[in-house]
Amino acid sequence: MTVTVAKGFVAAGVRAGIKKSGKPDLALVQNLGPLNAAAAVFTSNRCQANPIIWSKQVIVDGQVSAIVLNSGGANCYTGPQGFQTTHKTAEAVADALEISAGDVLVCSTGLIGEQLDVEKLTAGVSIAAAELSEEHGQAAAEAIMTTDSVSKTASFVSEHGWSVGGMAKGAGMLAPGLATMLVVLTTDAVASSQDLDRALRLATRVTFDRLDSDGCMSTNDQVTLMASGASGVEPSFEDLAAAVQAVSQDLAMQLLRDAEGSSHDIAIRVSKAASEDDAVKVGRSVARNNLFKAAIYGNDPNWGRILAAVGVTDAAFDPYDIDVLINGISVSRKGMPDQSRDLVDLKPREVAIDIVLNAGQHEATVYTNDLTHEYVTENSEYSS
Amino acid sequence: MTVTVAKGFVAAGVRAGIKKSGKPDLALVQNLGPLNAAAAVFTSNRCQANPIIWSKQVIVDGQVSAIVLNSGGANCYTGPQGFQTTHKTAEAVADALEISAGDVLVCSTGLIGEQLDVEKLTAGVSIAAAELSEEHGQAAAEAIMTTDSVSKTASFVSEHGWSVGGMAKGAGMLAPGLATMLVVLTTDAVASSQDLDRALRLATRVTFDRLDSDGCMSTNDQVTLMASGASGVEPSFEDLAAAVQAVSQDLAMQLLRDAEGSSHDIAIRVSKAASEDDAVKVGRSVARNNLFKAAIYGNDPNWGRILAAVGVTDAAFDPYDIDVLINGISVSRKGMPDQSRDLVDLKPREVAIDIVLNAGQHEATVYTNDLTHEYVTENSEYSS
Repeated sequence: MTVTVAKGFVAAGVRAGIKKSGKPDLALVQNLGPLNAAAAVFTSNRCQANPIIWSKQVIVDGQVSAIVLNSGGANCYTGPQGFQTTHKTAEAVADALEISAGDVLVCSTGLIGEQLDVEKLTAGVSIAAAELSEEHGQAAAEAIMTTDSVSKTASFVSEHGWSVGGMAKGAGMLAPGLATMLVVLTTDAVASSQDLDRALRLATRVTFDRLDSDGCMSTNDQVTLMASGASGVEPSFEDLAAAVQAVSQDLAMQLLRDAEGSSHDIAIRVSKAASEDDAVKVGRSVARNNLFKAAIYGNDPNWGRILAAVGVTDAAFDPYDIDVLINGISVSRKGMPDQSRDLVDLKPREVAIDIVLNAGQHEATVYTNDLTHEYVTENSEYSS
Repeated sequence: MTVTVAKGFVAAGVRAGIKKSGKPDLALVQNLGPLNAAAAVFTSNRCQANPIIWSKQVIVDGQVSAIVLNSGGANCYTGPQGFQTTHKTAEAVADALEISAGDVLVCSTGLIGEQLDVEKLTAGVSIAAAELSEEHGQAAAEAIMTTDSVSKTASFVSEHGWSVGGMAKGAGMLAPGLATMLVVLTTDAVASSQDLDRALRLATRVTFDRLDSDGCMSTNDQVTLMASGASGVEPSFEDLAAAVQAVSQDLAMQLLRDAEGSSHDIAIRVSKAASEDDAVKVGRSVARNNLFKAAIYGNDPNWGRILAAVGVTDAAFDPYDIDVLINGISVSRKGMPDQSRDLVDLKPREVAIDIVLNAGQHEATVYTNDLTHEYVTENSEYSS
């Protein structure tokens, strides 16, 4: 159940020869219409890859006919030559599908600072164009994998005859600096690009944006939503937004579970915050704290590290009126130890951290994972 | 050459029985005068340990007669009972030395959320008071060690008859959430508490504050400077400030070299910045980037990770006009690859990262270390 669950979309995943491993490395998704409405969100990193610079221009008019994605190279910090490579890739797609290059989004993922082989890319596009099919959604999902151990796909099928499908790559945002998060969502609902944009931003804000595996932000992140309208059904905005959010959350949790080298999935729920922003800020600070993350790896309920991470934020709270629970055990209340930390069992993969700020009525959950030997190994050996 | 290099100071380091290992765990430094001027800087973490809360009150009048430091427990998030423990420790020092408890600073380091044994602490103070001597500066430096592999001391001796001494603990700020950085500086120069405060803030801003091993901020950090005036010499403010900075830099580099589990010492020099703040901001962002740090561990000159970390800051720069050098090799210029990354040799322990923002005339250097298997091991096994 992937991008082709939505009617009006065909996909392909092929070997273009960009990855040294010889594995599939180029995916193509085409929107056959009748609509070609689309929206996209991009990394907020100021150092942006060439496909990001290109795609930001393409999305301006809200019209997208196809998206092409390659693994095996980020095409970031590759200068004018790198931008030409992105441009030529889009033109190759346009030529093969008889559409406008200005309606082709491009995504790349891999190592920064290396030129992609444009001949291999454009030849790969030709192969992919010939392979486009409703049956090849899974092949597309596999072609965008980098350090992912499994492909990630999700779908929502409405009883009213429309659906949302999706595929994602990214080893849990653990390494978005190179193993960037790329997501393609499709729907056969009838929707305007404005509504798609609103629905996508609402969804990403509480799903992909709340995954924070190592605090490192990619130069290549892109999440795209395309609508074909092929179902002929126009759901309410609320129904569409809920479906987009459900598929996004499903993919986000798949990214989390496949985080590079992780041994625990950690949900940090911050409640009774003065604002949702405060709750997110506190959750992120804990999610990015290496000491906390290493402790969880060691099955060590070292709650002092949680409070030390909370304390560096400017969120509204009284530092001595915060409650902390780990897997349901209240380990600290009002600036003092509460139940014994020995009662906390951290052997299960799922870890629930509850931080109660006692400063208001808002809440948010940020997802992260532990800092492990395997993370260090994967990220110290990536490019060599 | 430690805190007792300055005339007018005596010190002791003893076993109070707080550490389970039975190693020395309590240090005492007394200022015999004639002056008892002092200044201190504290962690900016809002979740502060009881000794921080106490010491902030003590320093208000700029008068300090003694400082007592324990390892084996942070006395943080231990509630009113924990504050009483700090208070009683200061009173025990006051009784033993016939001074005012209001002139006694207290520092603690170790695990957050555990009560310290006040009987052991006060008994330890009695033993330490009896041991106070100009000969025991080294013993004091050893008694404040936690995960440190070596004790850290430094000194500056002026040809004009005055000196500055110092001791520090902290495994490179790698784990300031528990293995906090505690520093005691002494001088026999004649100086007012106002001048000590100015000199200390000038020094810490460019030394201890630029060590950023893992971005985690302690609840217990404290850097104290005390002046006895025993030399009878009143150096110029500039000379005093330079000496305090030299000793601070020496200790800071010792902390860096002893960082938990590190295999590379990394100096990140950011130049041609629009402001010093911008330079520090960019340096810190790189210093805190786990992907970059893991790459250095793997001897991998993955410069894309440096630019991705630069790109998340709001410093003034054009993302495509930044130059990056690693150990003197220009790996990226103006948003493109320059010399081959294969020319970079990362086998030596010392690593020099140069980031040229081409946005102004300011610069700053931030020091950090790599992210290693040993870091994860040490910090996943600390409290268990």
